[in-house]
Amino acid sequence: MSEDAPPFQTQDHDSLTIPLLSHQQRSINSTSQVAIVGANVCPIESLDYEYWMAFLVFSLSNLALTLFAAIITAFISPAAAGSGIPEVKAYLNGVDAPGILSIRTLIVKIVGSIAAVSSSLLVGKAGPMVHTGSCIAALFGQGGSRRYGLTWKWLRFFKNDRDRRDLVTCGSAAGIAAAFRAPVGGVLFALEEMASWWRSALLWRAFFTTAVVAIILRALIDVCLSGKCGLFGKGGLIMFDVYSANVSYHLADVPPVLALGVIGGILGSFYNCLLVKVLKVYNLVNEKGTFYKIFIACTISIFTSCLLFGLPWLVSCQSCPSDASEDCPTIGRSGNYKKFQCPPGHYNDLASLIFNTNDDAIRNLFSKNTDSEFQLSTMLIFFVTCFILSIFSYGIVAPAGLFVPVMVTGASYGRFIGMLIGSWGNLSHGLYAVLGAASFLGGSMRMTVSLCVIILELTNNLLLLPLIMVVLLVSKTVADAFNGNVYDLIMKVKGFPYLETHAEPYMRQLTVADVVSGPLQLCHGIEKVGNIVHILKTTMHHGFPVIDESPHSESPVLYGLILRAHLIALLKKKAFLCTPVQLGADAFRHFSSDDFAKKGLGNVDKIEDIELTDEEMEMFLDLHPFTNASPYTVVDTMSLAKALILFREVGLRHLLVIPKISSRAPVVGILTRHDFMPEHILGLHPSLVRSRWKRLRFQFPLLLKIF
Amino acid sequence: MSEDAPPFQTQDHDSLTIPLLSHQQRSINSTSQVAIVGANVCPIESLDYEYWMAFLVFSLSNLALTLFAAIITAFISPAAAGSGIPEVKAYLNGVDAPGILSIRTLIVKIVGSIAAVSSSLLVGKAGPMVHTGSCIAALFGQGGSRRYGLTWKWLRFFKNDRDRRDLVTCGSAAGIAAAFRAPVGGVLFALEEMASWWRSALLWRAFFTTAVVAIILRALIDVCLSGKCGLFGKGGLIMFDVYSANVSYHLADVPPVLALGVIGGILGSFYNCLLVKVLKVYNLVNEKGTFYKIFIACTISIFTSCLLFGLPWLVSCQSCPSDASEDCPTIGRSGNYKKFQCPPGHYNDLASLIFNTNDDAIRNLFSKNTDSEFQLSTMLIFFVTCFILSIFSYGIVAPAGLFVPVMVTGASYGRFIGMLIGSWGNLSHGLYAVLGAASFLGGSMRMTVSLCVIILELTNNLLLLPLIMVVLLVSKTVADAFNGNVYDLIMKVKGFPYLETHAEPYMRQLTVADVVSGPLQLCHGIEKVGNIVHILKTTMHHGFPVIDESPHSESPVLYGLILRAHLIALLKKKAFLCTPVQLGADAFRHFSSDDFAKKGLGNVDKIEDIELTDEEMEMFLDLHPFTNASPYTVVDTMSLAKALILFREVGLRHLLVIPKISSRAPVVGILTRHDFMPEHILGLHPSLVRSRWKRLRFQFPLLLKIF
Repeated sequence: MSEDAPPFQTQDHDSLTIPLLSHQQRSINSTSQVAIVGANVCPIESLDYEYWMAFLVFSLSNLALTLFAAIITAFISPAAAGSGIPEVKAYLNGVDAPGILSIRTLIVKIVGSIAAVSSSLLVGKAGPMVHTGSCIAALFGQGGSRRYGLTWKWLRFFKNDRDRRDLVTCGSAAGIAAAFRAPVGGVLFALEEMASWWRSALLWRAFFTTAVVAIILRALIDVCLSGKCGLFGKGGLIMFDVYSANVSYHLADVPPVLALGVIGGILGSFYNCLLVKVLKVYNLVNEKGTFYKIFIACTISIFTSCLLFGLPWLVSCQSCPSDASEDCPTIGRSGNYKKFQCPPGHYNDLASLIFNTNDDAIRNLFSKNTDSEFQLSTMLIFFVTCFILSIFSYGIVAPAGLFVPVMVTGASYGRFIGMLIGSWGNLSHGLYAVLGAASFLGGSMRMTVSLCVIILELTNNLLLLPLIMVVLLVSKTVADAFNGNVYDLIMKVKGFPYLETHAEPYMRQLTVADVVSGPLQLCHGIEKVGNIVHILKTTMHHGFPVIDESPHSESPVLYGLILRAHLIALLKKKAFLCTPVQLGADAFRHFSSDDFAKKGLGNVDKIEDIELTDEEMEMFLDLHPFTNASPYTVVDTMSLAKALILFREVGLRHLLVIPKISSRAPVVGILTRHDFMPEHILGLHPSLVRSRWKRLRFQFPLLLKIF
Repeated sequence: MSEDAPPFQTQDHDSLTIPLLSHQQRSINSTSQVAIVGANVCPIESLDYEYWMAFLVFSLSNLALTLFAAIITAFISPAAAGSGIPEVKAYLNGVDAPGILSIRTLIVKIVGSIAAVSSSLLVGKAGPMVHTGSCIAALFGQGGSRRYGLTWKWLRFFKNDRDRRDLVTCGSAAGIAAAFRAPVGGVLFALEEMASWWRSALLWRAFFTTAVVAIILRALIDVCLSGKCGLFGKGGLIMFDVYSANVSYHLADVPPVLALGVIGGILGSFYNCLLVKVLKVYNLVNEKGTFYKIFIACTISIFTSCLLFGLPWLVSCQSCPSDASEDCPTIGRSGNYKKFQCPPGHYNDLASLIFNTNDDAIRNLFSKNTDSEFQLSTMLIFFVTCFILSIFSYGIVAPAGLFVPVMVTGASYGRFIGMLIGSWGNLSHGLYAVLGAASFLGGSMRMTVSLCVIILELTNNLLLLPLIMVVLLVSKTVADAFNGNVYDLIMKVKGFPYLETHAEPYMRQLTVADVVSGPLQLCHGIEKVGNIVHILKTTMHHGFPVIDESPHSESPVLYGLILRAHLIALLKKKAFLCTPVQLGADAFRHFSSDDFAKKGLGNVDKIEDIELTDEEMEMFLDLHPFTNASPYTVVDTMSLAKALILFREVGLRHLLVIPKISSRAPVVGILTRHDFMPEHILGLHPSLVRSRWKRLRFQFPLLLKIF
């Protein structure tokens, strides 16, 4: 039984997951048990009948759960589909995709993830838990939810971009901390994978968050130790506490470990590549409508059920070891020796892996002193199955994590390699499984410190540290030669304009003037209401330069930058002037600071909702007091790479470009995130693309959809 | 025996430390042994004589070692004194203090640290190892050392600010990784405490560095396991592997743990406060000359010897426990039961702590199932001794770390509290010692994640994680209410202009124009050599604005910013023009990229070294091709806090201030790091200082020296 007891909302999630799963597994086990008991007295048709009956129950319950998850996701909150980590990562980079952190997404994510994990699909729960944590944090960051009556007054202090970003970072750390009981790993995950901006204070806050998670987990374990938790089991801080004894390894063990890392890196990048291709195909199908989305989910569910129920027939039964530390065969609970359709005193090793929760499968693979338990063919079949299923399961329209599937796949790969190496090495097969999981995770997710600490916290053995470090470094290095981090690739498929830290080499050859584009919409310091409405209605820009006609200069002067949200707030208050005069600080009389606070993600005011009379349209607004009078600026001859550094490091949304020679207009344009996207730049300057094949892709955007 | 096997140079360091220490200790032990054996047959005067003889040997050898460390530090490289962590931290923030990363400092640091640690002073080695690692890294970052013939061609790629900074960060991570065998802790230390700028790629590189450290340590341990290491012992990855068994604790144990955290925080901030006061007094004495510096060091050494040799007399002898797992009393090696002057079958518990390496003292304090081994009075005496000695030992003119002394002090404090709580709590005294060390470290150094991981890696028990997290969070929170991080305070005493991430509240009330000062030195695009030499000789600025007289504008136009180093490189090449004409790209003909590469810290060219004839002084230089034509700029009406964000996040050294209204000169001034220092700003605007007492300090700078 999984020993998870995650905090806050996700707690319900898991406590539901496990009863469902175990109920289902128990039904399988009891069915097969009946079948086998029956085999001794009934004719063979009866056994066949029982077997098909079991399969029917299994696949139908899986299908029902998948269907439920898919329907709520597709109809209530499509943003809840998938892992959620790429979306949160994009949010922390500054991309406000609609609905990804709403309360609706939160609920669908929790319920859908329970259903999806229970439906025997090879999907994880770590990603959904990160998303859940982030959603809860975002809820705090927007002052609760007015629509659902969940508001607190003191939350208004967090209603700004930076605090909301910090809260979401802490929420994602809490998600990993809860999913793997790895508080330090959670902090590092948030730091290495999620956050785009980081500062020392945030490190401390994230640490505080995960400490609270750890303490709540520990308190729940205290309760569970007294046996009051039912199916939660007896609890325990470490998930896969399989290596608490000393592990000894020597320099001679380094070459196989290196090999494990290299192959893991290649497999991981291959995995990423296939996953992205499958996602793109899914996207093409999904574009046709909601029905197609749900159809794919159901197909995958049936495919998974068939595979899981059929594959154990391929391997032969093993006789139980005489010195087994647990019951053999085991029935009706997790364990290393599942009976499936074997005669008494025998067990089916593939069934032992398949008819278990993913957590227990990993525990079985990681376990030591079980070198003779699994057959080579079993391990190969299981590895290939996991590899394929996890790729095809990810893209369906349901909450689905990647972390655990990748870990299971990696563990089976590692154990397979360990069995191939056999007695040549000194390490146990279980240790190879741990290292295999590390290498595959490293090859796919490309994290280093955080993965290392998460695996250490999972296995509870610091002596493994040097080996895990080596494996992670090798696999990451190898995989980086082929493609990117799996979450970054998914973000790219989803089309999020993620801003990288480093400038691409060709950006050094371009100046800001080369990419800044379009006719610029300007406001005057004192502007007619009608003009403002026109500008807001005809463009979708979020920031506008404000200029002043200077009396002692022939050309107008740049006064500052005003945000669309602030213009709308001004229009909404209707504190207009009859004549074009400057108001000064007096202008704030009509406004409270709350009017300009950052709105929640879903309830931004729209210009279309504001109704103005013709008379009002002829009146004036003094924008000076509401304008950011000293925005960051760059000259148009600055290299694009240098402008990117300013834009990225300071965390801007708009960067004003001013002319180097002051005789022209006071502002050349505004750089936004989209102007730094490689697709945009290379679209403007196709000659910069090195390879001819890639150049074709930019000239014919349709090709981009699949390749 | 300490089980350290740090990598690279520091290896010699430790391998020397231990023989010296043990030799010395053995001499003490054997002397006292002789004395006691003699006591059975000789009259009492003989025992007295032997005791004084032992004291003489002990204190003289201590004095000699201290003197050696102090002399080489004072005469060869004063920058090697102290921990080195504040200096490296300041360097990573952008402060190039002279000589702190030179090869000379490196050698003095290694040799001096060995002598200082061996001389029974309560000084640590973690700080010096961080400094050592950083010096080695900086050596790579400046392309080796030409003076000592250590150069490699490929190192020239690192000759720039950013790569050098990254290398030094990795070096400091390696230092902690080697000192505590904590590779993950090392990375986190570098991230949380040292680095001012951080990016994902750097995380990976630091992880790679510490992985190499971990692997080399592991390989050395493999060698040591075969018994070929002599005094290194048998090795083992974890330093204080005292808690590998299960530790159980419950919610009822939380209140004492919280109390431990609160008191630890108060003690830690008090410790910081005292340390800074003592440092300021030392600084006043040190200003009088080198003799005084060495005198202080010798005084502290004699004081320490007296204290260490005298204190064990204060406590009574304990009879050996019958079920001791090791020899009792132990003679001639580390252990929990030192005989000192006790009768056979007895041991002196204070001597067990004092006549051991700091590592072994910590191990003794952390050990479990030894609740009856130490007396309450012993623990109190030891705590007070460590507290005082570590404060007075830090400021002497010798390499001296803070980490281990703080840890010993904290462990004794924790164990003392544990003994006070006694049977009311369920935790063992050893566990209280671990938590006490954590709380005192947290209260003094204010790190969170990194300290947590370092302690976990030291104690090798992940089950302690929630407790350690709670203690660290509480102690840091409490201590933050009183003063800052110990390293930041030391930096302030040393006068490094460290740039904080966050802006002080009063910076929001000021504009850039309020702090930018002084008559500005300008260069023209095509400038007379004589003028350049004059500007360079009369100012110490490192950057100069370059302006152009524009033909179609009455006022001159800002062209860009040129660095002092580049002007000197231009003057050195003497590629002057006879007439003021613009050259264009042709100008680069005379130069290679290496001419403008960042020089090593010690060998920057000076303007005084360049000799020019009167004829050359009348010639011209075209500065355009060598000028940064698009420097980052801000307008003079920008809030100072906003300018600080740009300055700090992008990592600038010079920030050009341009006028908001373009009718005046094209540039108002240059902001440098010093303009953002609170002392500078509050000196210009004393009315901003809240408290009257503090305002006085800024008006009478002499008061600042001590208070």
